[in-house]
Amino acid sequence: MEAIDKLNAHLADVINLSRAAAVLSWDQQTYMPPGGAEARAEQLATLSKLAHEHFVSEETGRLLEAAEAAVQGMNGDSFEAALVRVVRHDYDLETKLPTSLVEAIARETTRAHEVWVKAREKDDYAAFAPTLERIFDLMRQKAEALGYQDRPYDALLDQFEPGMKTADVARLFDELRAELVPFVQQVFERLDAVDHAMLHLEYDVEKQAQFGLDVVKQLGYDFERGRQDKAVHPFTTNFSINDVRITTRYMPNYLPSALFSSVHEAGHALYEQGSDQSLEKTMLAGGTSLGVHESQSRLWENLVGRGRPFWQYFYPKLQQLFPEQLGGVDLEAFYRAINFVSRSLIRVEADEVTYNLHIMLRFEMENDLLEGKLAFKDAPDAWNAKMEQYLGITPPTDREGILQDVHWSAGLVGYFPTYALGTLLSVQYWDKALADVPEIPSEIARGNFAPLLGWLRENIHRHGRKYWPAELTLRVTGEPIQTRSFMRYLREKYSEIYGL
Amino acid sequence: MEAIDKLNAHLADVINLSRAAAVLSWDQQTYMPPGGAEARAEQLATLSKLAHEHFVSEETGRLLEAAEAAVQGMNGDSFEAALVRVVRHDYDLETKLPTSLVEAIARETTRAHEVWVKAREKDDYAAFAPTLERIFDLMRQKAEALGYQDRPYDALLDQFEPGMKTADVARLFDELRAELVPFVQQVFERLDAVDHAMLHLEYDVEKQAQFGLDVVKQLGYDFERGRQDKAVHPFTTNFSINDVRITTRYMPNYLPSALFSSVHEAGHALYEQGSDQSLEKTMLAGGTSLGVHESQSRLWENLVGRGRPFWQYFYPKLQQLFPEQLGGVDLEAFYRAINFVSRSLIRVEADEVTYNLHIMLRFEMENDLLEGKLAFKDAPDAWNAKMEQYLGITPPTDREGILQDVHWSAGLVGYFPTYALGTLLSVQYWDKALADVPEIPSEIARGNFAPLLGWLRENIHRHGRKYWPAELTLRVTGEPIQTRSFMRYLREKYSEIYGL
Repeated sequence: MEAIDKLNAHLADVINLSRAAAVLSWDQQTYMPPGGAEARAEQLATLSKLAHEHFVSEETGRLLEAAEAAVQGMNGDSFEAALVRVVRHDYDLETKLPTSLVEAIARETTRAHEVWVKAREKDDYAAFAPTLERIFDLMRQKAEALGYQDRPYDALLDQFEPGMKTADVARLFDELRAELVPFVQQVFERLDAVDHAMLHLEYDVEKQAQFGLDVVKQLGYDFERGRQDKAVHPFTTNFSINDVRITTRYMPNYLPSALFSSVHEAGHALYEQGSDQSLEKTMLAGGTSLGVHESQSRLWENLVGRGRPFWQYFYPKLQQLFPEQLGGVDLEAFYRAINFVSRSLIRVEADEVTYNLHIMLRFEMENDLLEGKLAFKDAPDAWNAKMEQYLGITPPTDREGILQDVHWSAGLVGYFPTYALGTLLSVQYWDKALADVPEIPSEIARGNFAPLLGWLRENIHRHGRKYWPAELTLRVTGEPIQTRSFMRYLREKYSEIYGL
Repeated sequence: MEAIDKLNAHLADVINLSRAAAVLSWDQQTYMPPGGAEARAEQLATLSKLAHEHFVSEETGRLLEAAEAAVQGMNGDSFEAALVRVVRHDYDLETKLPTSLVEAIARETTRAHEVWVKAREKDDYAAFAPTLERIFDLMRQKAEALGYQDRPYDALLDQFEPGMKTADVARLFDELRAELVPFVQQVFERLDAVDHAMLHLEYDVEKQAQFGLDVVKQLGYDFERGRQDKAVHPFTTNFSINDVRITTRYMPNYLPSALFSSVHEAGHALYEQGSDQSLEKTMLAGGTSLGVHESQSRLWENLVGRGRPFWQYFYPKLQQLFPEQLGGVDLEAFYRAINFVSRSLIRVEADEVTYNLHIMLRFEMENDLLEGKLAFKDAPDAWNAKMEQYLGITPPTDREGILQDVHWSAGLVGYFPTYALGTLLSVQYWDKALADVPEIPSEIARGNFAPLLGWLRENIHRHGRKYWPAELTLRVTGEPIQTRSFMRYLREKYSEIYGL
C-alpha cells in the first residue's frame, strides 16, 4: 500500500535518529568517560531536535492524512490501520505542544534536577517546593495543550498509557486499597516469621554476574540480539528489535539486587526482542505502553523469578556457587527469604506486597497538586499522612518521603501509575498463560522457560504497538484490567509464607 | 565576531551529527551484538545523510561567504581566519561532488567490499578486477569534479592531506627509494643478527592488558577523557576533545601486537585530546591531516615506544610481569628483538625500515591506474615486479600481494601516502623536540613523558586544524617535510642493531 510505504519511508529518519539517540544514552550510562558529558548533552539535544522537527513537519501531517484516507474501511486489526493509529497518536502528542512550552519544560526540568539532588541531599523540601510548583504549573499547561475530557491528569497519563483514564485508575486503586491496606497490616504483624539474614552476607560479584548471565540466557534473552552491561541505575534500551540491551548493578552484600534486577530488565528486553520482525522499520515496533512493559518485567521478576518452580531448578546451582553462604539454607527457607516483606519507606526497595501502596499515594498526590486541591507547602505532610494511613509508618525525613523519587523533577507526572498497572496485568497475563498451558510451572521447574516465553510471544510480544493496552488485555485475557487476580495471588502466596 | 558565531552555531548540528555517528561506529566495532548490524547501517546512513544535507545547504554557503567577508584583511593566524579556511576547504570538498556521484561511490564501495573479501579469500584477482576498474573510474570522476591543476591524484590526495601535491610526494619518494632500497638489502643480509623468538611465547592476555593500560596512562593519555576497549581492528575515535577513545586487540602468542598498537592509538588520541579547549565546538578541533595524525601515532609508537629510554624504564616492569618469558632476556636483547626487521609481504606487518616501500608501491600504482598507464589486468604483475624491485621478494599469491588491503575497495585512493608522510614527519618533529628539550630521552628513561607531551601540545596538538600540514611543519621545524631526517634515523638505529 503506497500511502503506508511513503509514510514509513518518511518516518525512517525519525526512527533512526531516535535509535541513534538511544545508543548515545546507553553509552552515557555504561562506558562514557566523565569528560564526555558536556559534548554528549549537545549531541543528544541535536538528535532530539532533528527527530522532533522531522516528525512534526507538514510532510508528516500530509502523509499521515493520506495514509488515514487509504486505510478507511480497512479491518482495524490490520498492520496498516494500527500503524496509522499509532502514528496519529504520537503525532498529536508532539504537535499539540507549542515549541515554547516544550522548551520551557526542558529548561525547567534540567534546572530542577540539580535543585532536587541538592534538596534531597540536605533533606530540605522548602528549597525544592517552588521548583516543584513551577513544574506542576507546566504540567497543567501541558495537559491543557494536549486536551482532555474529564480531568487534566488524563492527558498526562495518556502519554505513558494510551487510552487509560484517571477515573479508571482511581477505581482500580480504590478497590486495591480496600483490600491491600488491611492485608499489609496482617503481614506486618508477622514480619519476624521470615529470616532473610543470609541474603545480606558477602557474595562475590563475579560469581553473581556469571549466575545472572546464565539465568537470563536460560529465560530466553537472546545475546545474539542484545548484551548486558553494568549501570548505576539498571535500565533496558533498544536500537532495533535485534539490538535490545539490558544493564544491571552488583551489590556485594545483598544477593537479590543484581539477580532480580537482571531478570526484571530481561523481562522488558524479551518484550522488545519479541516484536514481529515485520515491524522492525516501523513505529509499531516495541512495547505498547509503559504499563504493559512493566507487566512483562514484573511477570518475569516476581511471578517467575520469585516463584518456587524457578528456584527448584536454579537453587541447587546457586548453592553450588555459594556453598558457604547457602549450603545450610534449604529451598523453602530461601524461597521465603527472597519474598520477605518489610516496612520500607522507599518505593524502589519495596516488596510485591507493599509496592502498589507507594504508587497509589503518588497518584493521589499528583492529582491533588495538579488540580490545586493541595498546597505545595503542605505536600510533605500529606505524603507522610498517607504513608501512615497506608503503611502504618511515617517517614522521619522528607528525604525518605516526598523527596525520594526523581520523576517529578524530570517532569514525569502521570508515569507512576504504570508501575501498578503493570503489576496488576502481570498476574492477569500469568493466570491466562497457565490456564492455556498448564505445564508452564512444571517446565520452569525443569529449567524450560520456552512454553511461557512462547505464550508471551504469541499473545503479547509479537504485536508490538499494534493494539493499545486495553484492547490487548481484553484480547489476551477476555476481560479488562482488574485487581482481583493480583489480590488473590498476594493472599495465596503471602498467607503461606507468613503463616496467616 | 558575529559572522563567525553564526557560522559556528549553524555548523554545530553538523558536528553533533558527525560525532553521534562516531559513537555509533565505535559501538559497532566494540560492543554491538551481531543482530544490531542491519539497523546500525541504517542509523549511520541517516546520520551521514542529515550531516551532509545540513553542511551543503545554501545556508552554510551564505554564512561562509559572510564570514569570509568579515575576516578579509585579518591576520591569517587568527582563529577566525583559520576557521573560515577550514570550513571553505571542507565545504568545497562536499559541494563539488554531485549527489549522483556520491551515491554511485557509496553503492559501488558497499558492493566492492563483499567482492574484495571473497576475492581475497579465494586468491582470485580476476574476480575483483572489474570492480577495481569501476572504482578507479569513479575516482577519476571524483578528481574531475573536485578539480586539480596538475595531476588527477592531486584532488584525491588533498582530501586526506590538504595542500600536498602528487609531485611533492613523488619527489620525496624518489629520494627515499634511492637510499632505502639499498639499505633494506643491507639489513636483509643480516636478518639472523636479531633473535626475536621470545616475543612469540605465550603471554597472558590479562597481564598484557594491564601493562598496556599502565603504559598509555603514563604517556599522558587521559582516562577521564577517554577509555580503551577491544576491537578486531584497533582504531582511535573521538566524540569531543574530551571523549577520545582508543581500542586494541590482544594476541596471546605475540607480545608486541597489543602493546605497540595501544601506544600507536594513544599517539593519535593524545593529538585529539590536545586540541585547545576553545576549539571544542568548532570544525578546528582535531588533527589537521592524516599525515600529521600518523606522525603522532608513529612518534609515540616508534621513536618513543621502540626506543631505548622507554624500555630502560618499562622493561624491568615487563620482566616482573613475565618472568618466565623474559627473566633471562636482557634489555639490549629485548630492544633489538622489538626492532626486528623481516621480509614481510604484508604492509600492516611491516617494520619501520621496510614500511615506506610498501607505501611507495601503492602510490605509484594508484597513479598509474588512475592515469590509464597501467591496465587493470596487468596490475598484479606490476605489483609483484615492484615488490621484487623494492624488497627483493615476490608474493607467491595475490592474496599476499595486490589483494591484501581494504583501502581501494573502500574508495580510499590517495590515502596511502599519508602513512609515509607521517613517518617522515614523526622523525622531523622528534628531532626538533629533542633540539628544544634535550632532556626528553633522559626523562623518558625515568618514566617522565611530560616534557615530550608538553612540547607536542604546545607546538602541534593545541592548534587543532588551525594550520594546514605544510604550514604547521614549517612553523614547527623551520623547514618543509623531507626524507633526510628519517633516513639518518634509520641508518643510525638499524646499523647499530644489525651491526652494519
